[in-house]
Amino acid sequence: MTVMYSFEELQKVINAEIERRLSELTAGKPIDLYSPVAYSLSMGGKRLRPVLLLMAYNMFSEELDDALPAALAIEIFHNFTLLHDDIMDNSRFRRSRPAVHVQFGENTAILAGDAMAFISYRYLMESSSPNIIRVLDLFTGTALEVCEGQQYDMVFEKRMDVSESEYLEMIRLKTAVLLGCSLKAGGLLAGADHDISDQLYLLGINLGLAFQLQDDLLDTYGDQKVFGKKIGSDILGDKKTYLLIKALEISEGKNKSTLDKWVSGKPYVDEDKINGVIEIYNKLGIKSIVENKIDIYFKKSFKILDDIPLKEKQKVPLKELCYDMAQRKY
Amino acid sequence: MTVMYSFEELQKVINAEIERRLSELTAGKPIDLYSPVAYSLSMGGKRLRPVLLLMAYNMFSEELDDALPAALAIEIFHNFTLLHDDIMDNSRFRRSRPAVHVQFGENTAILAGDAMAFISYRYLMESSSPNIIRVLDLFTGTALEVCEGQQYDMVFEKRMDVSESEYLEMIRLKTAVLLGCSLKAGGLLAGADHDISDQLYLLGINLGLAFQLQDDLLDTYGDQKVFGKKIGSDILGDKKTYLLIKALEISEGKNKSTLDKWVSGKPYVDEDKINGVIEIYNKLGIKSIVENKIDIYFKKSFKILDDIPLKEKQKVPLKELCYDMAQRKY
Repeated sequence: MTVMYSFEELQKVINAEIERRLSELTAGKPIDLYSPVAYSLSMGGKRLRPVLLLMAYNMFSEELDDALPAALAIEIFHNFTLLHDDIMDNSRFRRSRPAVHVQFGENTAILAGDAMAFISYRYLMESSSPNIIRVLDLFTGTALEVCEGQQYDMVFEKRMDVSESEYLEMIRLKTAVLLGCSLKAGGLLAGADHDISDQLYLLGINLGLAFQLQDDLLDTYGDQKVFGKKIGSDILGDKKTYLLIKALEISEGKNKSTLDKWVSGKPYVDEDKINGVIEIYNKLGIKSIVENKIDIYFKKSFKILDDIPLKEKQKVPLKELCYDMAQRKY
Repeated sequence: MTVMYSFEELQKVINAEIERRLSELTAGKPIDLYSPVAYSLSMGGKRLRPVLLLMAYNMFSEELDDALPAALAIEIFHNFTLLHDDIMDNSRFRRSRPAVHVQFGENTAILAGDAMAFISYRYLMESSSPNIIRVLDLFTGTALEVCEGQQYDMVFEKRMDVSESEYLEMIRLKTAVLLGCSLKAGGLLAGADHDISDQLYLLGINLGLAFQLQDDLLDTYGDQKVFGKKIGSDILGDKKTYLLIKALEISEGKNKSTLDKWVSGKPYVDEDKINGVIEIYNKLGIKSIVENKIDIYFKKSFKILDDIPLKEKQKVPLKELCYDMAQRKY
């Protein structure tokens, strides 16, 4: 019977592998290129995506070593997207440390990001799985979709008429497909059949959508200490989050005109704007609308997981992860 | 007997395929992402790299269609590097048209470049060759080397003590490996054995080194109308070209102090600086030093091509290309 590993155990496996890769990377030349790569990879985080890959793999095999390079590939790809996004969004900080472009300069950051994209492929190709071409195809398609999602996100910033379905498609591309890719790649590497790998993909999509909506919610309603980011930054930046899109959609009369005023782009005192927008959100019941939506995606996730034709024991770690994500422990 | 295609015939095949891909790309969504990709790919150029790939492939097979996606992959990768380089170097123009970041904005240009890197892989993976994993490995290693070369190039800008061997290694990475990769990938896709594909790689390296040194030479000694770029831009930018590195190495006494003065970073009238540096180059005989070096790399290229154990007829187009490159027709 396959040994099933918990989230924390898999995190440890991944962090040990990251340490090993970091020594490799910092020995690379020119050091000016590989230092920012190592810096980006060492910034920490939950390592959710590589854990998902290993969890899916672990449903079929306990020989995690065979899937570890691919798990690292997904993580370094994820860090590449954060690195380039931070340049585009001009975000100065990432996980309480200076962003790569702040620390190393923008040119080096662009180039280090490029290198990370190719390092992802290098790691992926360390796999000896007979399914490697399918994994490379999946990964490449996913990477392009993530670029598409980021472009939509940038375009939406300048639009006031983003619809709910446009928004959901944007976060599917920008966030959810990489979670789907992680789970499906884990399955494929372990030799899972078509049906199960497609179910794993769909599970990742639903988890990803729930995860991003949680992120939107926490940016406004979260506890700053737990969330780790400044509360209200989405409101200040007039970001077209699910909250704002729903509020613009359902508000009428005075609520609508007040909301329009706050998001008009005129300068306001930060505190006033955050409180003003939250007041409208509260009147409209936005918090529970988003919570209900999140709940729907988690319910779908559990349903998909239930339907996967494997023994219950093989699904335990993934099911626990879904529960914990629903409680936003990760 | 295999039909052998000329450079011009292969260029036509590639340009037709680029047209087909451009319609595909401009139908992609979001259009804001794929427009700059199409713009970059439609900027023209000699299409040297995909021609090299097809020429190597054509040594073994006339079924060019099987190698065409890989040829396009190399070209779109090359355009990706130009696109990101233009951002880093803040070059405003590319082939007499506004650079992508000037035309579409820097954020979109960064992202479109990223997408192009992934599109390269998508095209590569359209190949059904049994050697595809070897080609992907080669391509990924090459892509990383190109990043390394670009980083060295940026670092060298701030250094006054770049040695000849450091410089040659930089241009090997930044320019030559992609020509080597193009030829070797063409060979591998056609099923060439290890030895021949390694010879093709080495041929590309030598051609690439010669090609970059020609570029250095033309930037100072070229005919602006033929060269297509402004003469003297390397001198004005204090670029550590082979010319400057050799001049700094061999100059003494008054020549040395005059040269040091010109490259000290102080402001001068453009015309004065270009003429002043060229005067020193002329005194030192830099032009013939570089011409001799270029000649050595072309001689090596012909030797490698001669040694490849294939019939003379199979080598004709590649040999003609080498001759034409030596005359800088391409």
